[in-house]
Amino acid sequence: MVKTIDGGVNAAKGYTCASIRAGIKESSTKEDMALLMSEVPATVAGTFTRNLVKAAPVQWDSDIVYRVKQGRAVVINTGIANAVTGAPGLESCKKTAEKLSNLTGIPAEQIFTASTGVIGPQLPMDKILSGTEAMLPKLSDTREAAHAAAIAIMTTDTKPKEIAVEFSLGGKTCRMGAMCKGSGMIHPNMGTMLGFILTDAAVEYELMLKTLREVVEETFNMVSVDGDTSTNDTVLLMANGLAGNELLAEEGADLNEFKEALHTVAEFLATHIAADGEGATRLFTAHVVGAPDVETAKVLAKSVITSNLTKAAIFGRDANWGRIFCAMGYSGANFDPNKTDIRISSAAGEIKLVENGLATDFSEEKALEILSPDAITATCDIKSGSCEATAWGCDLTYDYVTINADYRS
Amino acid sequence: MVKTIDGGVNAAKGYTCASIRAGIKESSTKEDMALLMSEVPATVAGTFTRNLVKAAPVQWDSDIVYRVKQGRAVVINTGIANAVTGAPGLESCKKTAEKLSNLTGIPAEQIFTASTGVIGPQLPMDKILSGTEAMLPKLSDTREAAHAAAIAIMTTDTKPKEIAVEFSLGGKTCRMGAMCKGSGMIHPNMGTMLGFILTDAAVEYELMLKTLREVVEETFNMVSVDGDTSTNDTVLLMANGLAGNELLAEEGADLNEFKEALHTVAEFLATHIAADGEGATRLFTAHVVGAPDVETAKVLAKSVITSNLTKAAIFGRDANWGRIFCAMGYSGANFDPNKTDIRISSAAGEIKLVENGLATDFSEEKALEILSPDAITATCDIKSGSCEATAWGCDLTYDYVTINADYRS
Repeated sequence: MVKTIDGGVNAAKGYTCASIRAGIKESSTKEDMALLMSEVPATVAGTFTRNLVKAAPVQWDSDIVYRVKQGRAVVINTGIANAVTGAPGLESCKKTAEKLSNLTGIPAEQIFTASTGVIGPQLPMDKILSGTEAMLPKLSDTREAAHAAAIAIMTTDTKPKEIAVEFSLGGKTCRMGAMCKGSGMIHPNMGTMLGFILTDAAVEYELMLKTLREVVEETFNMVSVDGDTSTNDTVLLMANGLAGNELLAEEGADLNEFKEALHTVAEFLATHIAADGEGATRLFTAHVVGAPDVETAKVLAKSVITSNLTKAAIFGRDANWGRIFCAMGYSGANFDPNKTDIRISSAAGEIKLVENGLATDFSEEKALEILSPDAITATCDIKSGSCEATAWGCDLTYDYVTINADYRS
Repeated sequence: MVKTIDGGVNAAKGYTCASIRAGIKESSTKEDMALLMSEVPATVAGTFTRNLVKAAPVQWDSDIVYRVKQGRAVVINTGIANAVTGAPGLESCKKTAEKLSNLTGIPAEQIFTASTGVIGPQLPMDKILSGTEAMLPKLSDTREAAHAAAIAIMTTDTKPKEIAVEFSLGGKTCRMGAMCKGSGMIHPNMGTMLGFILTDAAVEYELMLKTLREVVEETFNMVSVDGDTSTNDTVLLMANGLAGNELLAEEGADLNEFKEALHTVAEFLATHIAADGEGATRLFTAHVVGAPDVETAKVLAKSVITSNLTKAAIFGRDANWGRIFCAMGYSGANFDPNKTDIRISSAAGEIKLVENGLATDFSEEKALEILSPDAITATCDIKSGSCEATAWGCDLTYDYVTINADYRS
């Protein structure tokens, strides 16, 4: 049984974290670096952006995930993405890891780096290195430290995103703590910008990587804020085994429990990224049911939440179901428009807008009421099977334009 | 030699047009219907939306293009798209054609219909039929009538889009007149919302259809306003042969001339749709060169002009080349980021932002100056061949959100 508990990224046994203001973006006064640390080497899995243009930390981290397979620490910075920075950019990752390695004795190849911010500039290495050193004595297992770290990794996010869960493997109580940042350039073809999930369970590498990929596919990869896939998307999962469970290495009830825990954490973070998308005022969920296969359901659901016209209508609380239908039509997925039903629902109720491909005689007044709360779901039933999928997005607002018209300044 | 002349949709021999306010959208006082007429049956070609959800007029018109292959008239309305209207919607197209057929003796199956506006509602057939009848006595070959028709088919367009050209086939002077409407829900996977191109040249059906498809692929299909492919996209090309040229039925110099005329007209309309995209303040052109094949160049160019983040940066006159690079990276096309150059140019000059995958030391001041005029081009050189492609889009602005947050009211 997976239970959500009060906690953040350092909730599981043997993990600490710290954060600091290194002053990477001079105009900002908030903390801009965070450090995550495991007391012992952890098995690591990760998923990374499929953008052909991969930021330096993505290249650095994927080498650890696929070759080293063990990690102890993560150094995170905001302000500059260290993307499209060529060989000097990769060198910056190496220098950061080596600095922490010199200070702690942890092998440099067990130290991840993660960056988010503007594409192009090189990292100010003096600030990164002194920031890294300054965080070491601050490492802590407190709730406050986790919360501060979740805030430190935010860019245009308006709220920190963190969660912790408790679950049980072979009679041992395990924990999983996580944080992430999202906001803009969110249309992961992998996961979101930066997500860190730390557990004290003991899990075999291949099984953990496979499970992470499956969960990411159903959660982070079903979120879109603006259709732009970042160069830095990274989700890291570390498992240090300090909960003392017998190594989880095969399918069965324990794996199901672990997967459920991971799914709970990932879905929470993914939906909160969508709800806190740049400029967003509403979480907009598309739920496609009655599909002949999951892939069809996914393609339809993602097309609906990605449509600028639909997103603008959600912002305007306009029951413009034609745009939802239109987005399904151009998605590339095959379905019969004449069998399709569309309903919208929220805390204020549910209403059917389309039945068998034709508009119902719905009440605009009632529709406006249902479209007013801050979480709206469109359910599209294509009545051709029993598969389903859910995708999460947000509305398109004036603030999205404001935030992105001059992000660099 | 193709020459642009002053003229609109009725510029070629034997074509007349008319427009009227039928009152389809009661809140609007502008004209909302237009009628195009050829004196004699014309050979017709057309391209239509690839959205699985096809509006009734798309179904009606494609039957004429693919089965009948001849047309005499087009009845156009704005306000209601007659999309997702089922059997009654198709019946409305038939009734409209039959009405005009009864009044004129033209076979109903030679009468196109075209609609644009809100998806869902049925057409108010009393208004459509009386509007159609009332336009007949107004049919005219004057410049004013063409201009009025181009205005009548506008929805959220801020400017009418019309052009005429003169060209020569086998020593005979031919003309081609055209108009279109664009604005929102523009990401044609075929052509734009509604485009009408009328020529007095005599062209064989199959050759004309093939040529139209090729030209649409390079023009209308390279435009995106918001990534949403409409249910109603239609481009119709009519050729009534009244210029008296010998039937154009094979490859050669005459076909090249005809294709150049069509390309001139289609590119003019396509770029004007982009520049007049909903809420747009700037035409944004992406020109990809040095590609190993045209498809790669097209995919990259379209990805750049479709990126919300890039579009918002163009609105903000922000030389955020990282977003252009990022959009190239997630496009799905293969290229070497480390060989890529990116330049931006406008009437105010040109500046190189990226060279071999790394930022140049460009002047922000100079970049701001170049980003200030109302037409901006990004040129991306991937240095892997000699193929190229151009795509046209626009910036993402507050007004796009305003227009689309409550379009139906």
